[in-house]
Amino acid sequence: MPRIVNHDERRILIAQVVDDLVYEQGVQAVTIREVASRVGYSTTVVSHYFSSKLEMLVFTHQQARRKVEALIEAAISHGHPLIETLEHLLPLTEERWRDWHTWFAFWGMAPAEPDVSREWREGTSNAHHLFLRLIESAKAAGQFPANIDSISAATQIQIYVNGIASLVSQHRSDWPAERQKAMLRSLLQGAFALD
Amino acid sequence: MPRIVNHDERRILIAQVVDDLVYEQGVQAVTIREVASRVGYSTTVVSHYFSSKLEMLVFTHQQARRKVEALIEAAISHGHPLIETLEHLLPLTEERWRDWHTWFAFWGMAPAEPDVSREWREGTSNAHHLFLRLIESAKAAGQFPANIDSISAATQIQIYVNGIASLVSQHRSDWPAERQKAMLRSLLQGAFALD
Repeated sequence: MPRIVNHDERRILIAQVVDDLVYEQGVQAVTIREVASRVGYSTTVVSHYFSSKLEMLVFTHQQARRKVEALIEAAISHGHPLIETLEHLLPLTEERWRDWHTWFAFWGMAPAEPDVSREWREGTSNAHHLFLRLIESAKAAGQFPANIDSISAATQIQIYVNGIASLVSQHRSDWPAERQKAMLRSLLQGAFALD
Repeated sequence: MPRIVNHDERRILIAQVVDDLVYEQGVQAVTIREVASRVGYSTTVVSHYFSSKLEMLVFTHQQARRKVEALIEAAISHGHPLIETLEHLLPLTEERWRDWHTWFAFWGMAPAEPDVSREWREGTSNAHHLFLRLIESAKAAGQFPANIDSISAATQIQIYVNGIASLVSQHRSDWPAERQKAMLRSLLQGAFALD
């Protein structure tokens, strides 16, 4: 019996190929033709799933951030410690390093494209709200000082995580996992007196 | 008498066109043909200045960072206050916002390209050394606590500046200049007890 592959699964499969292409050759290498050739579909089939290169890139960005959003959601529902959850967002592994690469590539796309700027806003706003919930949950567990404003703290944490990732992305060998984690801890300790 | 345009000036002129293209249509829009058409040269002439699209993009990234590096150099030699100098690096203006856009776009290029990863390392390392000199100069002027390690402080400041810029780039209307400056000051005050 043939395996039933549905619409969403095919889109996710195509996004994976787009992600690899962006990593290996840059955004400019992403064409419907090249993606079709790599995924083994005709360009007509790929065009059935994505009406344009832009739509493929927006969806690929969404996939990369949704994976990480799901990770934060899971950490909140399991009551994982705040610092450990944040560590998993850093480019400590090959997989996460590639996610950050995808994000930077997407942040460099044309702001005049409404689909691009909408996806930027949605990505950054979702991250902010997840960090906010993470902080509230840490406060409830007595892991985060109750007197610190959660909204400002969420923005600060976004700055720390994005800032560390920006340095690691550009000089990976300078930033082994331990150094990234130590830097994150030091920034959180300095700002919020966490331990 | 015709104005004499030298090799470097032409490269800078072409880089400006590349920068505009990346901003308006993304990295994928950068082709020798399109650049030639916009700058008003033949593709042969453009190819004389840049052997490839990649070389044009690397040079464009260099131009954007050199402009900001010169700004920091000038601030050091004039003894400008540390916080004011750092503020000028934030995407407070249209020009600087576009510079950040260029950097993000470049950070999303393919790491397998040696010219790309070399330029990443050089950019981040130059920024680090300039921040270090800025801190040393602020220490000498009594504007920065002498007991704080300059090297760690330089890395921290890079994280703050890049982190703030990453949020602003994705949701510009949320981050008017005053909010960016207030955030930078608050992070510097929290970390280094500056005022």
